[in-house]
Amino acid sequence: MGVQVGIIMGSKSDLPIMAEAAKVLEELGIGYELTVVSAHRTPLRMLEYAETARKRGLKVIIAGAGGAAHLPGMVASLTSLPVIGVPIKSSNSIDGWDSILSILQMPGGIPVATVALNGSKNAGILAASILGAFDGAIAEKLDTYKKQLRETVEDTAREIETKGWRNALGE
Amino acid sequence: MGVQVGIIMGSKSDLPIMAEAAKVLEELGIGYELTVVSAHRTPLRMLEYAETARKRGLKVIIAGAGGAAHLPGMVASLTSLPVIGVPIKSSNSIDGWDSILSILQMPGGIPVATVALNGSKNAGILAASILGAFDGAIAEKLDTYKKQLRETVEDTAREIETKGWRNALGE
Amino acid sequence: MGVQVGIIMGSKSDLPIMAEAAKVLEELGIGYELTVVSAHRTPLRMLEYAETARKRGLKVIIAGAGGAAHLPGMVASLTSLPVIGVPIKSSNSIDGWDSILSILQMPGGIPVATVALNGSKNAGILAASILGAFDGAIAEKLDTYKKQLRETVEDTAREIETKGWRNALGE
Amino acid sequence: MGVQVGIIMGSKSDLPIMAEAAKVLEELGIGYELTVVSAHRTPLRMLEYAETARKRGLKVIIAGAGGAAHLPGMVASLTSLPVIGVPIKSSNSIDGWDSILSILQMPGGIPVATVALNGSKNAGILAASILGAFDGAIAEKLDTYKKQLRETVEDTAREIETKGWRNALGE
Amino acid sequence: MGVQVGIIMGSKSDLPIMAEAAKVLEELGIGYELTVVSAHRTPLRMLEYAETARKRGLKVIIAGAGGAAHLPGMVASLTSLPVIGVPIKSSNSIDGWDSILSILQMPGGIPVATVALNGSKNAGILAASILGAFDGAIAEKLDTYKKQLRETVEDTAREIETKGWRNALGE
Amino acid sequence: MGVQVGIIMGSKSDLPIMAEAAKVLEELGIGYELTVVSAHRTPLRMLEYAETARKRGLKVIIAGAGGAAHLPGMVASLTSLPVIGVPIKSSNSIDGWDSILSILQMPGGIPVATVALNGSKNAGILAASILGAFDGAIAEKLDTYKKQLRETVEDTAREIETKGWRNALGE
Amino acid sequence: MGVQVGIIMGSKSDLPIMAEAAKVLEELGIGYELTVVSAHRTPLRMLEYAETARKRGLKVIIAGAGGAAHLPGMVASLTSLPVIGVPIKSSNSIDGWDSILSILQMPGGIPVATVALNGSKNAGILAASILGAFDGAIAEKLDTYKKQLRETVEDTAREIETKGWRNALGE
Amino acid sequence: MGVQVGIIMGSKSDLPIMAEAAKVLEELGIGYELTVVSAHRTPLRMLEYAETARKRGLKVIIAGAGGAAHLPGMVASLTSLPVIGVPIKSSNSIDGWDSILSILQMPGGIPVATVALNGSKNAGILAASILGAFDGAIAEKLDTYKKQLRETVEDTAREIETKGWRNALGE
Repeated sequence: MGVQVGIIMGSKSDLPIMAEAAKVLEELGIGYELTVVSAHRTPLRMLEYAETARKRGLKVIIAGAGGAAHLPGMVASLTSLPVIGVPIKSSNSIDGWDSILSILQMPGGIPVATVALNGSKNAGILAASILGAFDGAIAEKLDTYKKQLRETVEDTAREIETKGWRNALGE
Repeated sequence: MGVQVGIIMGSKSDLPIMAEAAKVLEELGIGYELTVVSAHRTPLRMLEYAETARKRGLKVIIAGAGGAAHLPGMVASLTSLPVIGVPIKSSNSIDGWDSILSILQMPGGIPVATVALNGSKNAGILAASILGAFDGAIAEKLDTYKKQLRETVEDTAREIETKGWRNALGE
Repeated sequence: MGVQVGIIMGSKSDLPIMAEAAKVLEELGIGYELTVVSAHRTPLRMLEYAETARKRGLKVIIAGAGGAAHLPGMVASLTSLPVIGVPIKSSNSIDGWDSILSILQMPGGIPVATVALNGSKNAGILAASILGAFDGAIAEKLDTYKKQLRETVEDTAREIETKGWRNALGE
Repeated sequence: MGVQVGIIMGSKSDLPIMAEAAKVLEELGIGYELTVVSAHRTPLRMLEYAETARKRGLKVIIAGAGGAAHLPGMVASLTSLPVIGVPIKSSNSIDGWDSILSILQMPGGIPVATVALNGSKNAGILAASILGAFDGAIAEKLDTYKKQLRETVEDTAREIETKGWRNALGE
Repeated sequence: MGVQVGIIMGSKSDLPIMAEAAKVLEELGIGYELTVVSAHRTPLRMLEYAETARKRGLKVIIAGAGGAAHLPGMVASLTSLPVIGVPIKSSNSIDGWDSILSILQMPGGIPVATVALNGSKNAGILAASILGAFDGAIAEKLDTYKKQLRETVEDTAREIETKGWRNALGE
Repeated sequence: MGVQVGIIMGSKSDLPIMAEAAKVLEELGIGYELTVVSAHRTPLRMLEYAETARKRGLKVIIAGAGGAAHLPGMVASLTSLPVIGVPIKSSNSIDGWDSILSILQMPGGIPVATVALNGSKNAGILAASILGAFDGAIAEKLDTYKKQLRETVEDTAREIETKGWRNALGE
Repeated sequence: MGVQVGIIMGSKSDLPIMAEAAKVLEELGIGYELTVVSAHRTPLRMLEYAETARKRGLKVIIAGAGGAAHLPGMVASLTSLPVIGVPIKSSNSIDGWDSILSILQMPGGIPVATVALNGSKNAGILAASILGAFDGAIAEKLDTYKKQLRETVEDTAREIETKGWRNALGE
Repeated sequence: MGVQVGIIMGSKSDLPIMAEAAKVLEELGIGYELTVVSAHRTPLRMLEYAETARKRGLKVIIAGAGGAAHLPGMVASLTSLPVIGVPIKSSNSIDGWDSILSILQMPGGIPVATVALNGSKNAGILAASILGAFDGAIAEKLDTYKKQLRETVEDTAREIETKGWRNALGE
């Protein structure tokens, strides 16, 4: 299969959040690469990463950053691959609002597919759903994944309904 | 090519915004369908739309809604196709914050690829970039589109630099 | 009396908050049921829950959810029973703003009776006041409940006035 | 049937918004009364209104106010009837945030059933759904109302699908 | 001198904050009374407190409350004495925004003199400055208080300038 | 009586708002002076204004400003008279939030009595209530003013109740 | 003197705002250049502009942009010249919050000197004050500029004090 | 070289944040002074500090403050040197919004170069970049500093790429 998804982040401190994307891609059997690329500290590295992405076989890029988060939008300006942006509530972020708005509010012509604050797992699933639109095997795995989400809720519901909520709360 | 993108919106009043997605897809030669599906007024219609989307050949769904905007997230819960959400600053929206947060802040497992407030054109381009990841002809069109954006800026810059900003302002 | 109030929530992690509604209904002697129903993970279960609610004898539904909280609004779209929404400041919520706006800002035609952030106890009392509008015994219990709230304040006031605020602070 | 719903507002300037509640109640054939009661300008009138509401046969009170909107919460503190609060974006309101938070964020024990900003129509429908929980005829009218909402969306969808969105936009 | 300032708060849980007002009034030698009065739990007690305030010799009322904080505004509607409002970031408050807006955004005709979030000490000083406008001895004490604030800053500055900031940080 | 209230504002463009304070003081027969003092453009003029205010017989200062509104707080730092701050939604203000927070959130020791956004009329009434705490004649006028507010509401209510809301709306 | 200040903006639509910087630099006799450089549409042009700025003799760069405004921060990452950022409330901006936060909240190591929303004139004056720190003639012009600001306020104050505010309002 | 940068802050409690500016200036070999100057507690000290700054050889002033942060703007009104403002999330600040808006939103004529919330290190770097515009040695040090930032990112990237992200997370 090879590497289909590139996961990048502005700083090593974003790794605990961004690792969730890697984990879910592994669960779904999708090849990825993961590294650090900083829009502000390594602008030329970012340029090279984005411009060679398609040639290297990537289909989707996931980019996470916090504060005045320019990485996802700048990468989107340098490639026509779909770019998924993960706003991170980093230590220099104001409750996450700066990260969200810096990534979401892109001008006409250069979209970034933004997910929830710290929503790195969802970025991985979105990448999978993009691949799955053209790959039946991945689509099937996503359907299985959704089925498991459903069954977990149903199991919890059954437990609460039969044993009572006090039991479920451990009271 | 057939229809690859489904564009839906919660209300006819969203059409002036959502038509931008249709227009850019037409420019890029990508087949789409467009209709109204309301999460709150036609929940069963929404269910059917989402559950049959893949079978009908759609690769991407673009869903726009305003206020407590549940359409994009509910459609995402009912299909494993990628869903692009367009927050709309409708008449019942508080400066757009409700639309943005209702679409962006999805729980783990069910992502929506959110674009900027009223960013319907970018939703169309994002859909194209998703298709373009697997279709060289679309990728090429996107590269041409980006080149035109660049040349427009360069032309403007040249005009301002040579004729002066007062001229450009019409002063 | 039987079950008159249905309490549902999007995830088991909402239970510590939502249990407050159950507790206050027990205090007031009102029958309820409590379970987990996720709009995004179990959309069909939600559909069935909402559509059968009236037939099963429910008079009011209390629905709690966090983040892009679609459960209360979607249930309201599927039943004409009154639906009380409890915005929950869950781990994936931005200070609660997303939960509040996703529940409160419903479009014309589909209201949700929204209470304060994490205001599950108030949701229970509101359900009781709805029942109490048609049931003198419940109305009386609510009046007693209010009287107790008043007396607790008056007792505290008397204690502070007679013994001083330093004593009340434990200084 | 008699008067079952009381509609009050803090100022005559709120009337254009609050009239929507009256109109929808009329459509649904539900008796109501409507007047002005100001928490800040007529506190004693408010006291009397709230304390006599149940005796006068009211089942639900709808209270609208803007800015530091105290009317809904104060009325709720003076009666155990359900109180529906309508935050109004009045001229002295900051984009509606003050109205929303002053009404929504009630302390434990005194709930207000808050609807969307300027959501007076939804307040009327919510009042009807409360009555409808105990009155089959009203419940039926609400089901018809919802059916009409659904059919309007379906008609619009059909029109757009058959005649095209350019036609629907009047282009 | 007698009691000139009344300090009230919506709940005993506000006491740790509101005690700061009492402390600064004691420092300035100004007589005060302090008790709990809840707008929502004891509306009639609030009514009586406000309506008798002037007769009992009060010159200023300080009222603190959190969340949908109605106490300061309702007291202001019931007396023509100046009312100072203290927004409290209580456990049921959304980062304090609800408390601030519920107190600050009063309609024309009924002002509340609002101070900073949790700014109970400043409420005490403001009460003193109101009394000091008509009482030379209090004005003098306030001038002394301000002089001490100034001297504390100057002492700190001198220490940092002579011993270095590393020393001041305890490094 | 002489001048008891000083009204100042940061710019002539604030005059249409700040004139409301002057008008209400005239109605109540209270002497005032009104001028422009800019914290940022005339810092020394501000210094002199604040430091001589008490000597010139002022009892209260009303200061209005917009954007990064430093005038009220700086004047409060330079006098121990009570200072009422009016946040103004000037052309350089972000929906008024900057004006409000710059005036409200004063540090411990230097309070500003903040009123609602553009709440200049309320600033005038608050100044009157401060004077009225020590001046029976002013207190009486305030009581009359409040009575008129009440009667206006009652007249409106009566009109709506007797002639109907459609008539009141001019429908 | 030559060109010392570079003024750039993301789009021609920013020109009406950004022209204010040019005008104030002209008033102060400071050489500047002005053009359009888009971070997202012309990333390589931005790279070249920033990297050659110092060599071309620029001392300060003023960069204005709206929405997810990446231009100021990206230019700052590519040069060690001081970069002044002007957040612009463009048509795709949410009340300016996105523009402000995208420019202000830069990570450690890469500062942008941010001015007020639409504060292009102040960006010009800030650039002049930077030059003036090393150039006595510019410093003198700035002192004169400030003196004129002061005198304009004093003239307005005198007019209002002598002719009355009603006259100044044109009443 | 002598002292070229003045670092001031409103209170000793701001020192842990503001020390970061001092540290980075030391790293870059730039002379500075650091002290406490409070706009509200020592207005005359502030006046003297600002008015003598240029004469004492300062080229740039860095001013940090929290809450209703008036120090940076007032200093800017009293000198034509460039003033860098550091909004501090102090204990009396509402998530930092008050500090940011009080410093950023200065009126036309009096700019403050605002950096990120708690962005004291960036204030130091910005001061250096201002000096470096006229001093080749400082410019070179800044280039070296940026190179180190870049190399640190590249080293981290290499480590993650070769040893894997699980290793980097210490898993």
